[in-house]
Amino acid sequence: MFSIHEHAHTRLNLLTGDWVLVSPHRTKRPWQGKVETLPADNRPAYDATCYLCPGNKRADGATNPDYTDSFVFVNDFSALLTDTPDGDVNINGLLQAKSAKGICKVISFSPDHSKTLPTLPVSTIAKVIDLWCAEMTSIAQDKDIQYIQIFENKGDIMGCSNPHPHGQIWAQNSVPLEVSKETKQQQQYYERYWRTLLSDYVNTELQQQERIVLEHEHFVALVPFWAVWPFETMIVPKRPMAQINEMTQDERLAFAIMLKELTAKYDNLFHVSFPYSAGIHQAPVNNGQHPAWHWHMHFYPPLLRSATVKKFMVGYEMLANPQRDVTPEWAAERLRSLPVKHYKEM
Amino acid sequence: MFSIHEHAHTRLNLLTGDWVLVSPHRTKRPWQGKVETLPADNRPAYDATCYLCPGNKRADGATNPDYTDSFVFVNDFSALLTDTPDGDVNINGLLQAKSAKGICKVISFSPDHSKTLPTLPVSTIAKVIDLWCAEMTSIAQDKDIQYIQIFENKGDIMGCSNPHPHGQIWAQNSVPLEVSKETKQQQQYYERYWRTLLSDYVNTELQQQERIVLEHEHFVALVPFWAVWPFETMIVPKRPMAQINEMTQDERLAFAIMLKELTAKYDNLFHVSFPYSAGIHQAPVNNGQHPAWHWHMHFYPPLLRSATVKKFMVGYEMLANPQRDVTPEWAAERLRSLPVKHYKEM
Ligand SMILES: O=P(O)(O)O[C@H]1O[C@H](CO)[C@@H](O)[C@H](O)[C@H]1O
Ligand SMILES: O=P(O)(O)O[C@H]1O[C@H](CO)[C@@H](O)[C@H](O)[C@H]1O
Repeated sequence: MFSIHEHAHTRLNLLTGDWVLVSPHRTKRPWQGKVETLPADNRPAYDATCYLCPGNKRADGATNPDYTDSFVFVNDFSALLTDTPDGDVNINGLLQAKSAKGICKVISFSPDHSKTLPTLPVSTIAKVIDLWCAEMTSIAQDKDIQYIQIFENKGDIMGCSNPHPHGQIWAQNSVPLEVSKETKQQQQYYERYWRTLLSDYVNTELQQQERIVLEHEHFVALVPFWAVWPFETMIVPKRPMAQINEMTQDERLAFAIMLKELTAKYDNLFHVSFPYSAGIHQAPVNNGQHPAWHWHMHFYPPLLRSATVKKFMVGYEMLANPQRDVTPEWAAERLRSLPVKHYKEM
Repeated sequence: MFSIHEHAHTRLNLLTGDWVLVSPHRTKRPWQGKVETLPADNRPAYDATCYLCPGNKRADGATNPDYTDSFVFVNDFSALLTDTPDGDVNINGLLQAKSAKGICKVISFSPDHSKTLPTLPVSTIAKVIDLWCAEMTSIAQDKDIQYIQIFENKGDIMGCSNPHPHGQIWAQNSVPLEVSKETKQQQQYYERYWRTLLSDYVNTELQQQERIVLEHEHFVALVPFWAVWPFETMIVPKRPMAQINEMTQDERLAFAIMLKELTAKYDNLFHVSFPYSAGIHQAPVNNGQHPAWHWHMHFYPPLLRSATVKKFMVGYEMLANPQRDVTPEWAAERLRSLPVKHYKEM
């Protein structure tokens, strides 16, 4: 009899409408391929060559202030700029381009070069969340901005060029692809049921329990039924909110605790500073109300079998379909069983 | 004035309908991140530990024959199996899964462990193409199969676990995501103009010349206007054909020559065996005629600045939108200027 724990199958991603191929029987595959190097694990609290440490010089010649909490500045190598001229190209409908404007910022999470989210105090993480919320409000003052993407690349295998704890914000004058898909899916659901898609989804997961990693009063962390990355997770607020700056003070603190606990579990998995790209999906800005939107945070970590063997999203995945080898249920079980206290803090 | 050579913009991918963010001004970004190790460059013609070399044992206990050209067998760790039971799951419409069936094969391109596509003779590449065509026909005998994905992962940074020249075929009982998108886009165009989208696109590119890398009698190699990877290219037959086994003998030979020349240019770029994932997109099988489909081959190579610095598709790209730093025109110019003769064969 068909079982999602044993047999190959596809699963529907509710947020994008796409299907993911799952091959549970493939865990036995031996790995003879690339072995990643471990990240250095003994960074000093201050590094004179780091462009994010307090008092240091940056690429554009500016000097960082002697900041004590988090610190935000415009990216010295922004992919989007505020002064790009308007314009477009259209050759026979076949070559189509449109000017893109926006702003890219960098947020240092702490002056301490040696830290990461799971090893920072909850109070510091709460200040990062406050800063994210403040940036949402201030960046949206520019009425051209339609979407604000908050994210973190962590670890050099995730293209992060500096280990100092930091994240980024890229804001732009259009709604990016992944957010458009989620808008469409959530809108369709809301128009049918008058509840947000993620409220109903989270309630179903809470009944099932199988994919829940952490549950607190205000937030749930789970491995989505349709997860692509081996240990992919999602943090979802129980209360539907379109954007992060709708959180109460209590909820911000609860989110900080959830962030610390989830990322500590990640580090505890292979006893390594766990690499990932993570980011918040929320409603577009400067475009009315979004009752269908339920903000959430995705974590896409690449590691599969150990601290040095990652999942490659290559040939088949690039050309055909996302594919995973271990089941989301298996990954959730492993993450659930780990302590929320960081192995270095025990 | 707005210029796609200078200013940030988005470009339409005709084949998927998605937009790509291009940031031409960002080339000056210094790189302080991950430096990849170079692939070993002195492999022997025979490796006793390689599961693809003639006469060697494979994981399932089988012994490879003493083959002289190419050699195909069922993947010992297939993601898709032929005997998966039918079935599905649907919990409140929120947790949806369907059984997936198919077959995964491995194709060794040559008995010689030390070779790669660009260093193999054209006659050997032509035999690989013949084998691809024969596999199309034989795999499609199983009426459950709807799509046959032919691809190659090359280089350990592309998740390839064995440097022996080889590719894969994954065939399945559904149409994968990327192929569905291309079907929809090509269908829409065809119903409007009664010509294939890629015929008109290639003609426009041939008029413009800017993004053409190679042009022969039967095939064109170009950097697509909407390329995401720094040196992404596409090989397109000038004559519309839905599937590769519609090629004449002449066209197969021409395709072999194009494959050798394009991959030799790639190796010549940084004087390294150039990593990539490449694969053929063509019409689904066992589902009637597909006059709108124009088969083509995509090359997605990760390298950006040198043999050791790649482009990371991470945070913003995973959560928001594909993004690139150099223009497709700049990449095409670099590839065009390189010799078609491999640097090791000069
Ligand atoms: O089948 P292989 O070569 O062992 O594995 C490689 O290609 C597959 C298909 O693109 C991917 O799913 C794997 O992540 C990759 O490592
Ligand atoms: O801006 P950074 O950290 O230098 O760069 C990193 O994040 C960006 C946004 O996800 C990516 O476009 C880059 O490929 C990656 O290396």
